[in-house]
Amino acid sequence: MSEQLITLTTDFGEGSPYVAQMKAAALSVNPRVSWIDITHSVEPQNVRHGALVLADVAFRFPADTIHLCVVDPGVGTARRIVYAKIGEQNFIAPNNGLLSLLARDQPVSQLIAIESSEYWQQPVSATFHGRDIIAPVAAHLTLGVAPRQLGTRLPRLKQLDWPAIDRRRDSIVGSILMVDHFGNLITDITRTMLPGRGAGEFQVALGDHVCHSLVETYGQAEPGVTVALFGSNDRLEIAITNGNAARTLGHGVGDRVIVRWACPNVAR
Amino acid sequence: MSEQLITLTTDFGEGSPYVAQMKAAALSVNPRVSWIDITHSVEPQNVRHGALVLADVAFRFPADTIHLCVVDPGVGTARRIVYAKIGEQNFIAPNNGLLSLLARDQPVSQLIAIESSEYWQQPVSATFHGRDIIAPVAAHLTLGVAPRQLGTRLPRLKQLDWPAIDRRRDSIVGSILMVDHFGNLITDITRTMLPGRGAGEFQVALGDHVCHSLVETYGQAEPGVTVALFGSNDRLEIAITNGNAARTLGHGVGDRVIVRWACPNVAR
Amino acid sequence: MSEQLITLTTDFGEGSPYVAQMKAAALSVNPRVSWIDITHSVEPQNVRHGALVLADVAFRFPADTIHLCVVDPGVGTARRIVYAKIGEQNFIAPNNGLLSLLARDQPVSQLIAIESSEYWQQPVSATFHGRDIIAPVAAHLTLGVAPRQLGTRLPRLKQLDWPAIDRRRDSIVGSILMVDHFGNLITDITRTMLPGRGAGEFQVALGDHVCHSLVETYGQAEPGVTVALFGSNDRLEIAITNGNAARTLGHGVGDRVIVRWACPNVAR
Repeated sequence: MSEQLITLTTDFGEGSPYVAQMKAAALSVNPRVSWIDITHSVEPQNVRHGALVLADVAFRFPADTIHLCVVDPGVGTARRIVYAKIGEQNFIAPNNGLLSLLARDQPVSQLIAIESSEYWQQPVSATFHGRDIIAPVAAHLTLGVAPRQLGTRLPRLKQLDWPAIDRRRDSIVGSILMVDHFGNLITDITRTMLPGRGAGEFQVALGDHVCHSLVETYGQAEPGVTVALFGSNDRLEIAITNGNAARTLGHGVGDRVIVRWACPNVAR
Repeated sequence: MSEQLITLTTDFGEGSPYVAQMKAAALSVNPRVSWIDITHSVEPQNVRHGALVLADVAFRFPADTIHLCVVDPGVGTARRIVYAKIGEQNFIAPNNGLLSLLARDQPVSQLIAIESSEYWQQPVSATFHGRDIIAPVAAHLTLGVAPRQLGTRLPRLKQLDWPAIDRRRDSIVGSILMVDHFGNLITDITRTMLPGRGAGEFQVALGDHVCHSLVETYGQAEPGVTVALFGSNDRLEIAITNGNAARTLGHGVGDRVIVRWACPNVAR
Repeated sequence: MSEQLITLTTDFGEGSPYVAQMKAAALSVNPRVSWIDITHSVEPQNVRHGALVLADVAFRFPADTIHLCVVDPGVGTARRIVYAKIGEQNFIAPNNGLLSLLARDQPVSQLIAIESSEYWQQPVSATFHGRDIIAPVAAHLTLGVAPRQLGTRLPRLKQLDWPAIDRRRDSIVGSILMVDHFGNLITDITRTMLPGRGAGEFQVALGDHVCHSLVETYGQAEPGVTVALFGSNDRLEIAITNGNAARTLGHGVGDRVIVRWACPNVAR
């Protein structure tokens, strides 16, 4: 693990000085780490939102990147902080479900409960383990400390319940997981869940709004038209070309989305 | 092109994980690039706003910096992605007018339509060319790929229409191009457009508001006073000392600004 | 001073291109500096807020880091720009009180008024000394210029008045200094100001709201409960577990907070 790239995913808010405090804590151990901020805009204390961001982004980084993840409503309670090797990436995070979606996509080859306080910044506060434990531990990893030196093995990552996806013969019912900066409504339905058919054979319904086809890209429709398409992370999303679907359609996280495919009696 | 500094200008929003996805795509090609975020707060899909930010900032960087620019309402349609050498800087952007203001200020010495998919990240999505084409192409440039290897030459950059500036014998009529974070109203009138006279011989009018002089700096007036001055990018701006001009005066982008100079019959 | 790490603390707003202009000015002097953004979300022109952020963050960085601080309502007026060595850290900032809280915590061993224009970017604008003076001067320091080459010695830093803290035999009265991203109300009362007693012997009052104990961490109370605790910077804060105290309690900066300790007649 000679790589010195560390990413950060938190709910501290963009511009929060708490982010700089984490970086300072790590730089005090190894001044040569370099940083990529994935986001600090995870909805405060929304572990589910953090898990989704990580699942969409982390595996895109070069092998052996270290990802620090701090969405930690249970800071100071019994929840553990863990090191996990998932696929070819390294993660340090509270064991509260943040890493659970990642672990669906790639195998967890190592899972350690972080216990060896010699790699922490002292004194450890009760409220900011991101700065006092997670960041300095990461910096020690970049200096050659092995993950097994950090603590003892854990049998499994904490999981989260996700809304069920209902797959039928001629349809699938999912839900909106996230609204992005453009107001696009992003669902839990991915490309591989649909049968191989022409784009025109699918119908996507969100409340009263129905799209009678899938498009390949936003620009394929006139401005103002509601479209359904697979976005850049292969999730089905509902968007308005050059507009804001969340605001215009009045829909958001948790709302159900139905995809139906060619079936003579589908009411139009 | 041995320089490994890459800048990013997008409309993804501060804290958007899409920014980190672009960085990850480039770092997967060359883990040694370093990043400067110019802004991710370009107004969504506002190419004009993006063009202005670039014109104010890009030429300030060291020669041979690579600037990635993604404000791309036409992603997935026929618009090309281009590499342009403008002055001593390198740009990769959709050819939708984003680079047009830069090209007014310094000569375009090379312009290439990006076509060689061997430098792209596969599979290329239909909705996120910033990550799948622009970022990896930039990283290949830092590794020594020559711009001419990226595709074929284009004759010219796409231009945008900008509001006309009306220059008269004793006045100039421009308009507000942008409102900055402090609420300062920034115009398209630059210092060199005015005749050489004393600051007290100019009068600046915005709707009903008239400033009877130019000041050198915000602090030259009492708090709460509306002032006109040339800002740090040499654009005329209207500001309120220690206040927010946009909010207080009720003016914004597109509103016309008139500068008059010493002329006996100007109504005061 | 071989260290090339530079931090930035400004009121430009997250995503402001002015930040990138400062970085470009420094990189044009030394392309090898690396950057940590502490925050650009200091409340516009609020020197007091900037001073607080710096006091909480700067000393956490490795020795010899250079911190650039731009909250500068007096730009272009008589206020000086200074270099200060405080503790083991270097600061460049307008001498308007921004560094005054830092100087309470650690000794100022060198204080220089920045006057040698050979280290500035020319021409110097009247409105953006952060870019034209502060950033290039910092880059020259990373190249080995000594602070005494920057100008002449100043006798003392400008101070700011802070709300008085009223310490009594059985209580202390402070006030709220800041509201963080989670809505936690952060006060000027630090851990060392209280006598050594059990957490249950303290009572914290903010208007009508009274906490009858201190907790160690947010998670120690049920969601929705108002708690008082010492936060990660050792300041007393009032928080709502998994909630937003500022919004729910309707309190903010300047409001008084009273801590009382075990005293038979305290009304409950």
